Amino acid sequence: MPVSLGELAVRFGCELRGDPDLAVERVATLATAGPDAVAFVANPKYRAQLATTRAAAVIVDAATAQATGRPVLIAANPYATYARIAAVLHPAPRFAPGAHPTAWIAPLAQVDGSAHIGAHVSIGEGVQVGPRVVIGPGCVIEDGCELAADVRLVARVTVCRGTRIGARTLVQPGAVLGADGFGFAPERGTWVKVPQLGRTLIGEDVEIGANTTIDRGAIGDTVIEDGVKLDNQIQIGHNVRIGAHSALAGCVGVSGSVTIGKRCQLGGAVGVAGHLTICDDVAVTGYSLVSHSITEPGVYSSGMPVIAAQDWRRAVARLHRLDRLAGRVRTIEQQLGKEQDD
Amino acid sequence: MPVSLGELAVRFGCELRGDPDLAVERVATLATAGPDAVAFVANPKYRAQLATTRAAAVIVDAATAQATGRPVLIAANPYATYARIAAVLHPAPRFAPGAHPTAWIAPLAQVDGSAHIGAHVSIGEGVQVGPRVVIGPGCVIEDGCELAADVRLVARVTVCRGTRIGARTLVQPGAVLGADGFGFAPERGTWVKVPQLGRTLIGEDVEIGANTTIDRGAIGDTVIEDGVKLDNQIQIGHNVRIGAHSALAGCVGVSGSVTIGKRCQLGGAVGVAGHLTICDDVAVTGYSLVSHSITEPGVYSSGMPVIAAQDWRRAVARLHRLDRLAGRVRTIEQQLGKEQDD
Amino acid sequence: MPVSLGELAVRFGCELRGDPDLAVERVATLATAGPDAVAFVANPKYRAQLATTRAAAVIVDAATAQATGRPVLIAANPYATYARIAAVLHPAPRFAPGAHPTAWIAPLAQVDGSAHIGAHVSIGEGVQVGPRVVIGPGCVIEDGCELAADVRLVARVTVCRGTRIGARTLVQPGAVLGADGFGFAPERGTWVKVPQLGRTLIGEDVEIGANTTIDRGAIGDTVIEDGVKLDNQIQIGHNVRIGAHSALAGCVGVSGSVTIGKRCQLGGAVGVAGHLTICDDVAVTGYSLVSHSITEPGVYSSGMPVIAAQDWRRAVARLHRLDRLAGRVRTIEQQLGKEQDD
Repeated sequence: MPVSLGELAVRFGCELRGDPDLAVERVATLATAGPDAVAFVANPKYRAQLATTRAAAVIVDAATAQATGRPVLIAANPYATYARIAAVLHPAPRFAPGAHPTAWIAPLAQVDGSAHIGAHVSIGEGVQVGPRVVIGPGCVIEDGCELAADVRLVARVTVCRGTRIGARTLVQPGAVLGADGFGFAPERGTWVKVPQLGRTLIGEDVEIGANTTIDRGAIGDTVIEDGVKLDNQIQIGHNVRIGAHSALAGCVGVSGSVTIGKRCQLGGAVGVAGHLTICDDVAVTGYSLVSHSITEPGVYSSGMPVIAAQDWRRAVARLHRLDRLAGRVRTIEQQLGKEQDD
Repeated sequence: MPVSLGELAVRFGCELRGDPDLAVERVATLATAGPDAVAFVANPKYRAQLATTRAAAVIVDAATAQATGRPVLIAANPYATYARIAAVLHPAPRFAPGAHPTAWIAPLAQVDGSAHIGAHVSIGEGVQVGPRVVIGPGCVIEDGCELAADVRLVARVTVCRGTRIGARTLVQPGAVLGADGFGFAPERGTWVKVPQLGRTLIGEDVEIGANTTIDRGAIGDTVIEDGVKLDNQIQIGHNVRIGAHSALAGCVGVSGSVTIGKRCQLGGAVGVAGHLTICDDVAVTGYSLVSHSITEPGVYSSGMPVIAAQDWRRAVARLHRLDRLAGRVRTIEQQLGKEQDD
Repeated sequence: MPVSLGELAVRFGCELRGDPDLAVERVATLATAGPDAVAFVANPKYRAQLATTRAAAVIVDAATAQATGRPVLIAANPYATYARIAAVLHPAPRFAPGAHPTAWIAPLAQVDGSAHIGAHVSIGEGVQVGPRVVIGPGCVIEDGCELAADVRLVARVTVCRGTRIGARTLVQPGAVLGADGFGFAPERGTWVKVPQLGRTLIGEDVEIGANTTIDRGAIGDTVIEDGVKLDNQIQIGHNVRIGAHSALAGCVGVSGSVTIGKRCQLGGAVGVAGHLTICDDVAVTGYSLVSHSITEPGVYSSGMPVIAAQDWRRAVARLHRLDRLAGRVRTIEQQLGKEQDD
């Protein structure tokens, strides 16, 4: 849907340098944009491409605007403004109200008339589905769940009994919310299953990635607070709490009973051991293991970068013999009569 | 369903210190329990909460019982006893026998009359479904599978052709049992698919987590023995065998043709390289890589704990130059005329 | 289906040493083969079993043939020849053309008459399904997707809007192709969703494992080139490109905007950080982290092998104090008046 640059400037509070009547139809990268597109620069390293882009206008910050003569939409936060303009030019698909003929809805479920229920969906007893909710094909909603207004489950999402999902939360395909946590009591070399009786409570404006799993609580609840963003293939154990606006990248694993603060960022495949607490505003870089609680905001790491395989084998062998090397240094120090702290 | 403390004591072989006629209705944590609930102490660090809990009774061991005047159910294994009492007070949902009208069952499948077949399930030719089996919504059972008595597939589980599942095994949503293993023969820079002809054999009393995948064998079978517990998001390659009562935490990856012994425990995200053998009674802590066979019971590790990112960068740089540091120590030793073993 | 050794030899260009009229019915391992089976030796360490196998013939290379008197089919690449013979003796199940009565196909979808559409499948508007495509039970194909000839989706696969899949590509259960990438613009401690507008383009002869996820592009497309093989539980971020005939083992995570070359091999659970480039013909061993671009073909590693837990704890403590140890060595060198390069 074409929108004029002037309208975009007004709507998103940008200063426009260019023709307010020029209509644009899409967003694009600087390199691929034509005269019907807006592009953006959020990273100074792409500034050089400003000279050659054919974009109708480029969303930039004030500093970048000064460095170019191109038509620009000047924004305090160009990437966020780009995101909003993209959503206007490329609106999400619309879904007609009503239930697909192949969907199955239990007699005592309460489904708002404006909700869209897709093909082969099944909705259990006592489920409450709010206004404008979209439940895509193949989703399973077990008994007693509550989906607030504007929730969207894209397709093939499983929502286990009693789970609550807050308004505007978006769940990608294959996610499983509220499966049993991993709780077993050891007894004479075997395991006794501990009933998983808690719920899974998902806040508002949460996004949950494809094939991500969030277990229900064992006794208390598992809680994902408002605005949390979870990428694909993440595993969240029972009784975890993730603070508002934290973002977890793909393949992260969070063990049971962990509490993660607000505005934390965990890189890809980070692991968090059980029963730990991570305070607000912690970042952990990818492929790191959090094996103790973190009480100070900051950036933490333990991901080991690749080197040539034969060099790595040697480094590992050295690491495994570090005690030996330290002992040799100690011996030398003793020989020289100058021992230092270990 | 309310049960008296006396009945719980008799049924689970506990000594009761308290009113045998007092009825309880639920389990709860020490902190949240009211007078209608039983709580438990399995970890001494929670003993302090015994003084203030409002629980009707607390399941404890004999030592903890001596340290408190509260009403208690004394058990040899409080956590296992708690698990059993929780299952009585909070029974699993019941499922009516019969097939949902939207389910599809192939003409030559044999489904016991007491089994429950949920919405949008499809069951292939020659499948055998035993007594009291529960197949939840959206499951796919391909041709020739066998599900023994009391198996439960929660929802959206895929069971590929020829897979066998033993009695009482529980499979969480999104799991895939019996997909093709990853087998390709290299040929002139491309790959020729190796047909995956084996089966997936799952024992009795197994639990399989949400979105976990277990591949079928290439020629022989993939075997999960009785009582094995698999958490969410685990990947089990073709021709793996996992010994009875082993427990694997979330995100573990087991490569093809690995044999894991009985009563092993693998922490979260542990990886096991292909064609290895791990003996009985091995524990591997989270985020470790098993890259050689393990022949001695014990605890093994290689997970690297996070530290501040700038310290980590320095440690990695040092690790990559360890050969250099060892060489400097060697030089000093030579200079001093006292070389030590490397 | 029985086939004579002579026919196999002709069909796959092998030299036969044995009875050309002898019919075989199956493939088997050397240890389990009976007189109706062919086995193979691709790894010299299995040669010893040649003496005792009951196989009708064994597929071997010329060198192995010389070392045995057994009936053999001599092939330049025994494993690839085994794969092809196995596919002849154990043909994949056949699927009848037509749509299952429980499938739902949108009015404007174009489904070739030879395609098989399984139970509870839903196919959106504008989808194009080519000849002999097999879409197994429970799959969801959103609007505007294209599936070329002979594609097979085994079961419960989700293909999001606009995804294109090339001929003969095989997708295992639970895979999700084309979900939204993980794109959010930070703004005052919260996140603004960046619309994910690109597509997912899958080449020909690709295999995609169970519960693997491949995100759509943010603006441009995510591209999986011809012949790529992806194992289970892999996560591919938005705007990634994977070069032809590369193979990624289970649980690999590839962050957004990564480019991987042709014929690369990534071991299990390898991680690749965002915006990197890996050149052609790179191998990365399992559990390694690629955190910088790789421009030279070769083998790279950073996976840390397990040792006894108490030894590992000591090694980690030493690693965290390596700066200290290096400082002590420096002090000694200064004392001796012979400083060396760090």
